[in-house]
Amino acid sequence: MVIGHGNDKYKYGKEILHDFSSNIPGGMDHSGLFAFLQEKLPSITDYPNPTASPLDEYIAKRLSIPQNTICISNGATEGIYLIAQAFRGCRSCVLMPTFSEYADACRMHGHSVNSIFSLNDIPNDSHMIWLCNPNNPTGTIQEKNLLIQLIKENHNKIFIIDQSYECLTEQPVLQANEILNYENVILIHSLTKEFAIPGLRLGYLTANPVLIKRIAEERMPWSVNQLAIQAGCYLLQHEQEYKLNLQYILQEKDKLTNELQEIGGMKVWPSCTNFILIQLLFGKAPDLKDYLAKEYQILIRDCSNFEGLNEHFFRIAVQTSEENKLLLDAIKKWMNK
Amino acid sequence: MVIGHGNDKYKYGKEILHDFSSNIPGGMDHSGLFAFLQEKLPSITDYPNPTASPLDEYIAKRLSIPQNTICISNGATEGIYLIAQAFRGCRSCVLMPTFSEYADACRMHGHSVNSIFSLNDIPNDSHMIWLCNPNNPTGTIQEKNLLIQLIKENHNKIFIIDQSYECLTEQPVLQANEILNYENVILIHSLTKEFAIPGLRLGYLTANPVLIKRIAEERMPWSVNQLAIQAGCYLLQHEQEYKLNLQYILQEKDKLTNELQEIGGMKVWPSCTNFILIQLLFGKAPDLKDYLAKEYQILIRDCSNFEGLNEHFFRIAVQTSEENKLLLDAIKKWMNK
Repeated sequence: MVIGHGNDKYKYGKEILHDFSSNIPGGMDHSGLFAFLQEKLPSITDYPNPTASPLDEYIAKRLSIPQNTICISNGATEGIYLIAQAFRGCRSCVLMPTFSEYADACRMHGHSVNSIFSLNDIPNDSHMIWLCNPNNPTGTIQEKNLLIQLIKENHNKIFIIDQSYECLTEQPVLQANEILNYENVILIHSLTKEFAIPGLRLGYLTANPVLIKRIAEERMPWSVNQLAIQAGCYLLQHEQEYKLNLQYILQEKDKLTNELQEIGGMKVWPSCTNFILIQLLFGKAPDLKDYLAKEYQILIRDCSNFEGLNEHFFRIAVQTSEENKLLLDAIKKWMNK
Repeated sequence: MVIGHGNDKYKYGKEILHDFSSNIPGGMDHSGLFAFLQEKLPSITDYPNPTASPLDEYIAKRLSIPQNTICISNGATEGIYLIAQAFRGCRSCVLMPTFSEYADACRMHGHSVNSIFSLNDIPNDSHMIWLCNPNNPTGTIQEKNLLIQLIKENHNKIFIIDQSYECLTEQPVLQANEILNYENVILIHSLTKEFAIPGLRLGYLTANPVLIKRIAEERMPWSVNQLAIQAGCYLLQHEQEYKLNLQYILQEKDKLTNELQEIGGMKVWPSCTNFILIQLLFGKAPDLKDYLAKEYQILIRDCSNFEGLNEHFFRIAVQTSEENKLLLDAIKKWMNK
């Protein structure tokens, strides 16, 4: 487990007013959910359903897929660990740089782990290919058609595609109902990201029923807590009220990208989603992070602990226009110190 | 995962008014906790601390033990699975009949599993001995001095003692601060039971720091959700307001035990805690369960899926005096059908 991902706001306590560090979209009005959960608080005195039903029924209906192609998990993270556990001891390769949990989960469960930096470099002898799409922290995306072609051509390799950010891009991604006939694709999904509720821990896997059965057998009972299940069911029944303003988010991302490039002294990665990876050409990300936290109550994500990156990299997730401007001004001040 | 433990109230929905099926003590007033959680609902929009801090600090303070002897878990159940995973491939033996998750977790993580029915029968070549104390579902307890003697005499075997019901007995059990110098004892604790909040999933392990380090390395991040962490911290700061009325519970248990024995036609196991195992000499537990649910909105725990038990066994957890009387009358009616 890498300490320092997610957000580490808890380290700074009340000092942080503007959190750019986690990839969770801001600005969502959760008042309906809060009112609902308030009513449901007494349900914590009962055991949750051991496999998080009936949330799987709601997801099945939403995605028009059978229930036996879904495995609910305690955040997308439990999904990652369950897959690694179900395929213990395999040869895995991970498309880098990316979220560290794929490699961590694989190593924990006895996989050999190879880093690759392009899908052209998949080793012949690998059993599993892990990628995040759109990718954290780069914000880049793989062509959907390329992925389908790779899946078809490599039917002896399992592709694990973490689509936690699928709701935060306008680019085409694999749909749950498109991949169920392939025996070598598992999609990881996150309700955390879509509904901005990382504190509740809610994710799910979709795949062919044979794969889902194998993975679900590795689950412990009651891994998803009662309020998380209830919240998930509520949100899927009220999703119209919890629509992300993706157009605004992506416009702000483009604006922020351009304005960061104008500042100079850094390389800004082109992103198709709500976060941006930045490489400082001068100075170090941990120093910038400390400066922004102390002087401006702003939190960014220092990316030096991502394999393949170093202390010059940081990531920011787009916030409101006003907050983005605050961040820009603060970064400018630091650059000109 | 055995379907049907925990409570399976969700299967009957609103029909159940009196739940004797789970071992969670009833009658606790959670209004303070609910008010606190209501205020904390907005915290679900932030990631929880990845290792569930600062709850470990509160537990350390409460038990007067160092923080590095504690591992917080997503319910006691995650603790069981983490131990099995950390000691993958060992030879485990489980004191039966008991909670099925020990054997399930061990098998999932490649242990060979032996069932034993007495602590005199520990196989020489076993690496790990799993027991629940007080034991679910029998309600019996092992002598504390016998356990200490076994721990001392078998320093090459690890004793995993699930003390989830430690707060529900007056008999002496091992204290967290007594076992830290032994390198071969792990205690499993449950906040779920003590504070009657099984929906939140909160447990922890205590052991020597070397053991805890080994187990904690197997954890995935964020396994305990934000509201569970917050609730745990609140409850440990307000534990005086959430004291179980153990005297009342045990008195009711004794009364219920005597009255069940008076009905006749069943064997009632002597319990030192809040639940009672009963063996029907005539008729089957699943039939009684269905009858009680349909006719009296009462839920009991059919124990036929416990290894070593069969369809004649059921378990009830003591409720209020009035509810216990309802249950007794209903069982009598069924016996005389």
